[in-house]
Amino acid sequence: MTDVAPDTCDLLIEAGFVVPVVPHGVVLEHHAVAVTGGRIVAILPVAEARQRFLPRETVSRPDAALIPGLVNAHTHNPMTLLRGVADDLPLKVWLQEHIWPIEGAVIGPDFVADGITLAIAEMLRGGTTCVNENYFFPDVQAATYKRHGFRARVGLPVIDFPTAWAASDDEYFEKAGEVHDQWRDDALIATAFAPHAPYTVNDANFERVRMLSDQLDVPVHLHLHETAQEVEQSLEKHGQRPIARLDRLGLVNDRLIAIHMTQLTEAEIHLCAERGVSVVHCPESNLKLASGFCPACALERAGVTLAVGTDGCASNNDLDMFSETRTAALLAKAVAQDAAALDAFSALRAATLGGAKAIGFDDRIGSIEPGKEADLVCVDLSALETQPLHHVVSQLIYATGRQQVSDVWIAGRPKLLQRVLVEMDIEGVIANARQWRERIAGLRR
Amino acid sequence: MTDVAPDTCDLLIEAGFVVPVVPHGVVLEHHAVAVTGGRIVAILPVAEARQRFLPRETVSRPDAALIPGLVNAHTHNPMTLLRGVADDLPLKVWLQEHIWPIEGAVIGPDFVADGITLAIAEMLRGGTTCVNENYFFPDVQAATYKRHGFRARVGLPVIDFPTAWAASDDEYFEKAGEVHDQWRDDALIATAFAPHAPYTVNDANFERVRMLSDQLDVPVHLHLHETAQEVEQSLEKHGQRPIARLDRLGLVNDRLIAIHMTQLTEAEIHLCAERGVSVVHCPESNLKLASGFCPACALERAGVTLAVGTDGCASNNDLDMFSETRTAALLAKAVAQDAAALDAFSALRAATLGGAKAIGFDDRIGSIEPGKEADLVCVDLSALETQPLHHVVSQLIYATGRQQVSDVWIAGRPKLLQRVLVEMDIEGVIANARQWRERIAGLRR
Repeated sequence: MTDVAPDTCDLLIEAGFVVPVVPHGVVLEHHAVAVTGGRIVAILPVAEARQRFLPRETVSRPDAALIPGLVNAHTHNPMTLLRGVADDLPLKVWLQEHIWPIEGAVIGPDFVADGITLAIAEMLRGGTTCVNENYFFPDVQAATYKRHGFRARVGLPVIDFPTAWAASDDEYFEKAGEVHDQWRDDALIATAFAPHAPYTVNDANFERVRMLSDQLDVPVHLHLHETAQEVEQSLEKHGQRPIARLDRLGLVNDRLIAIHMTQLTEAEIHLCAERGVSVVHCPESNLKLASGFCPACALERAGVTLAVGTDGCASNNDLDMFSETRTAALLAKAVAQDAAALDAFSALRAATLGGAKAIGFDDRIGSIEPGKEADLVCVDLSALETQPLHHVVSQLIYATGRQQVSDVWIAGRPKLLQRVLVEMDIEGVIANARQWRERIAGLRR
Repeated sequence: MTDVAPDTCDLLIEAGFVVPVVPHGVVLEHHAVAVTGGRIVAILPVAEARQRFLPRETVSRPDAALIPGLVNAHTHNPMTLLRGVADDLPLKVWLQEHIWPIEGAVIGPDFVADGITLAIAEMLRGGTTCVNENYFFPDVQAATYKRHGFRARVGLPVIDFPTAWAASDDEYFEKAGEVHDQWRDDALIATAFAPHAPYTVNDANFERVRMLSDQLDVPVHLHLHETAQEVEQSLEKHGQRPIARLDRLGLVNDRLIAIHMTQLTEAEIHLCAERGVSVVHCPESNLKLASGFCPACALERAGVTLAVGTDGCASNNDLDMFSETRTAALLAKAVAQDAAALDAFSALRAATLGGAKAIGFDDRIGSIEPGKEADLVCVDLSALETQPLHHVVSQLIYATGRQQVSDVWIAGRPKLLQRVLVEMDIEGVIANARQWRERIAGLRR
């Protein structure tokens, strides 16, 4: 052994604990992760790593847990600029009297780019490294995420009425095709079709989405069964519940990323499991908008891929995946009436590998395994708030705040080091958010 | 005006925003709070304050909101040492196979003092200034809170079986009387009777509690209607639901601090309102233990005093009143099926004045009003995570993390200044928690 020359690697991260997510339920103490060319090459005990590797750089975090980067599987990040602009209102008043009029006045490339930039800074400071984005101007979204080296699947919007992004059905699909073509081979950015919701997209447009998503092999990102009213309206208009209607249109398959899903029969849960549908649970949005309770535990136990999303900041009001995952784990127990539902390891899996699977990125991220890209997050557990440290993953899910994230890498590139954003001008981002505050306040005077 | 000599005051806190809680719904911009002799003497615009007062000390926080200290209205703080020791288990297994055996081995004055000391550090760092404590060894609890200048009402335990604290019914009541006498005139510490729960306290002991609480004029702190099983068991054993049984025993009155209350009929909600019962909502504990959903909005709308508690760290797993209040505000909407339920201002009131009222401290704390004691908390809103700042109280409830608490005073004494604990050796507290970790891990090997 001693004769063997050490391997070089770009980066060696030594951590008090490594939680690889795969295999499930494992915590590796005093382990290191070696990274080369943006990919994980080995996970091994620290002592062994120091013998085997000659790293260009070593980061040592003996008090931290190293976990896969969190995947926010549903959000509308430009709306970060609308954080808290209107709260505590019935859905209709909130949308029609507040959100839509403001969006109508501000929406455009600047709003999208600035909102996403603010969101990226917030996400990095909270351990999120990948996002499933759903908003208008996917061209601007993609360019903004790429500029900051942030991993994203951006949604190609389809909706039955004209918006600032497109004026007609044909224009939605033409622009979708263009954005898809531009980013089809990118290492960080991919696209999905994002038909808005069953009540805003007609059968013809859904059929076009199905055909194109099959041809281009991209997922379909859809708000689905968010509220009881949505289901009732579909029964009235189409004579079918939304999932049944989508099934008739050929969309209930393993490309479908179904968001919310608070209204589900047992048969629908099993249909989702059989067809490989992924469900993104957004518990805080569902609570705040009084949408209903997603049966997260029943979905998981039926074998459905479960992911976690924050939804947009106008209805949450943050991009905190630690808080969201904790709420998911807590709420699942009450909804299932079973304190053993969605345990800490399963909740962490939903927030990482679950999200990666849902958006079709699990070949490259979602767990700490050799060959996967190095989207990694160090969480400091030495804080008073996570002492005493009886169980690492319990602390991560039930007691850790996002401010304990110390370091973040995406594809091996450092994005946050000891709480400092590496490539972003945080003061500039905050100053820009303040300007948007003035502009939006001006609209409402 | 210019001839008048300025008043001296001990402390002038200038804040970007003052949220006084009384009057309800008000945010005062660029205001200052003057403190003398531990009490608030004035709330006025900063410019005016600088003219009127000659303060011994000025603290200027132009980017912060100043709020009343948060009141954690139900917790078992010695159990902070058991944070995350056992999770994701059915209640019976959790208690009988994990919590009770560990407690049996470690409970005693050291465990109580060390757990409460860790809890005080965590609470101060999170903006909590007052606690309604429920555990054994109230003598040690009181002395520990007093030593750290922390405001508390400590529970005098009553339970039908022997524990490390007392061996017989008579000993529970004798010791309760002694602890009450010792602290009856203290400025920071008071007592309450804490009969454990309807299923662990017999009629005779409840009658004794009622008589003594009337004589001594102290509240009764009781876990009540926590689960459906509790209600069923009471129907079987007593032929009455727990609240009806307590009413028969004379305990349903304005001294009753009822914890949890997840199982309530409309008639019971109105009974609580009529009799002046206070309800402490512990949403994260109720979710995590799958206990049920407290109808927080219905209680509040019926006129019941609503407070917020974290419960103990073995079932939460933190003492984060920001997170708990946010969960309360979010969950209330889903339970009431009304997105306007428990709005941000009402949630903040529950976490401050509601808690103060519930535990009978509203004559001295819970709001920023002249004459009240200066339990005050500065929350920095300049962080990226609370930008843009469209609405102060929305940000405080829906987006702020406890790490944004910058400064804390209790009765005008500084406890946290710019995130630094003034009088506590934080490294010592953490080292002590680590020793308890080793000791508890040793028990389980």
